[in-house]
This record gives sequence, C-alpha cells and structure tokens, in this order.
Amino acid sequence: MPRWEPDARLRLVAAAIELFTERGYEETTVAEVAARAGLTKSTFFRYFPDKKDVLAAGQEAITRLLVMGIASAAQDASPLEAVAAGVVRTAEAMTEVTKELGPRINALIASNPELQARAQLKHAALVRSVAEALAARSVSEPVAKLAAELGMLAFADAHAAWITAGNREGFAELARIAIDRLRETMSQIT
Amino acid sequence: MPRWEPDARLRLVAAAIELFTERGYEETTVAEVAARAGLTKSTFFRYFPDKKDVLAAGQEAITRLLVMGIASAAQDASPLEAVAAGVVRTAEAMTEVTKELGPRINALIASNPELQARAQLKHAALVRSVAEALAARSVSEPVAKLAAELGMLAFADAHAAWITAGNREGFAELARIAIDRLRETMSQIT
Repeated sequence: MPRWEPDARLRLVAAAIELFTERGYEETTVAEVAARAGLTKSTFFRYFPDKKDVLAAGQEAITRLLVMGIASAAQDASPLEAVAAGVVRTAEAMTEVTKELGPRINALIASNPELQARAQLKHAALVRSVAEALAARSVSEPVAKLAAELGMLAFADAHAAWITAGNREGFAELARIAIDRLRETMSQIT
Repeated sequence: MPRWEPDARLRLVAAAIELFTERGYEETTVAEVAARAGLTKSTFFRYFPDKKDVLAAGQEAITRLLVMGIASAAQDASPLEAVAAGVVRTAEAMTEVTKELGPRINALIASNPELQARAQLKHAALVRSVAEALAARSVSEPVAKLAAELGMLAFADAHAAWITAGNREGFAELARIAIDRLRETMSQIT
C-alpha cells in the first residue's frame, strides 16, 4: 500500500494480508505488519488488541450496519424482513476494497486454526448482536435467534457469491436475491 | 478409567479429557494419553489420526446415525421431518457416558483454538453429510442445505439442554421438543 493512504486501519489490514500470505501467519510479527504499513507497533495496538484480530477488522463495522439496518426497518416488518433490511444495508456499504480482500482473507483464515477459531467467535458474536437488535423490536428470543442465524446464512451466501471470481453483480443485489431464495427455500422445508 | 474397560476408543477419549483438563491440551502428548488409558501410542494412532481428533471421536458415529435415520424416514416425509428422524435416532443412541463427557469436552474445545477450529470443520462436515442424505431422497440442493443447517441447530439446542446440570429429560425427548420448537419458530419468522 502507498504510504499516503489515509486509512491507517485499512493499511494495517492490507499489510497483514500481504505478510501473512508471503511468510505465514505464525511467522509474521506485529512489528513487521506495522512497518510494512509505514506505521509503528504502538499504532497497530491502537487499532487491534492482537495480531489475530487484524483480519476481523471489518466485523465491528458490519455489526453496526446490521444493527442500524434492523432498527430502521418498517415497524410492521416481519423478523426476516427486518434482518433483510440489515443485510442489504450492510451489503450496500461494502466497498470494492473489501471485495478484493475477501478471498485472500478467507484463504488465510482457512489456513490457520487460531484465525479460524477467532472468526468463529466473531461470527457467533455477530449472530448474537443481530438477535439482540431483533429482540429490541419485541421479537421473542427463539424467533430472534433463528432469524439471526438464517439472516447470517443468507449474508454468507451473498458474500460468497459477491467475492467469487468473475462476479459482476453488486453485493446488495446479491443479498436481496439470497434473502428471497431463503424465504422460498424455507417454505419447502416443513 | 479402569484398565479392564473393553472399549479402547472410549478409554483413550476419557484419558485425553482427564489429561487435557489436568495439564492443558498443548502440554499433553499422545504417549501420555495412551499410557493413562493403559495402551500404547501405536494403539492411539489406530483410532485417531492426531491428538486433536480424540475429542471429536463421536462425530463419525453421529454422522452415521443421522444419515441412517434420514434414510429410514417415511417416503413422504418432508425434508425437516426426515432430518428430525435422523436427529431423534441419533439422540436415542447416545449413552450416559456421552452425556457426562459433554460439558468437559465443550470446556476443553472452548479453551483451545486448535480444538475449536477442528470442531468447526467437523460440524461443517456433519451439515454436508446431512444435506447429502437429504439429497439422496431427491430433496433439491438449497432445501437440503437449509434443512441440514436447521436440523443441526435443533440438534445442538437439544444437546445443550441434555448435558445441562440437573437435566433429567432423555436426549431423544429433548430432540423432539427442539424440532417442534424449530417448526413453530420458523412459522413466526417470515
């Protein structure tokens, strides 16, 4: 990344992806990531508690967008419609940079158990946040939990389609398709 | 475990749980697990490819039971009913030993990223096997995948309730309750 890139967080993520891919996650130090980004180790720790958190950098923003989207859904929206509003809002906010980093982040996570465990915890926290955002709309707990799980399945499907090589659809459109497909699929299950 | 226990696999699992809990997963060697079980290291490797596989010992049996249960469901059963047949059949086969080991295995997995990553992979493989068993009943792929995910959520809920301290309900009964609740919850989502 060029040094004039204004977003230190993004520079650190990009540097970490480069170095983890080149040398391996275990072999890369925080100091090396910071140096590659043209920053200091203490700057790194201002953004991330630990080396393993750097690849989950987008998670907080995603949680915030999901929760805001759910809160802004129409008052009479069903739990799934509310989750859909959150998913589409989040997808709309994702940039080309996120799209390009996606496959590389996924490959790195799959290659390291520590990163995999971290991603799993983050995912569980995301599902909980979505369920809480639904509960705040007076959705009962089991319905909120299940709608959150299903919404995150649709989100993951849409994300996988979005970052697939050769895809030209926008993430938001893919998210709408994934939610529609989920609804259709659910009706064929029971 | 007493040395006359006939099931070498179970003895190895029990020994591993003891030692991992006492000393930590990282600090325990395969040779030590084997010795605690009154067996040799080469016997260990006849049952498990690696130290990290010993806590996922039940997974293959669970997969087999789920797949058999799904295959034996009535021909006109819905995808969810077929998954339910698999889940109930699997729950019926689980013993008190499995129940007692449950909370300790969960605690160990939660304490170690390598075990956590392993458990996640095993879970994903389980969902795939269940989806394949449904596809073999001519269920379409997206419906099979979603029914598998939902069935495994119900299975996890029932398992968590079963191994909760003080629970006196049988696993199969809890599995039936979890599936009924899932069906009821699904109807309130869209």
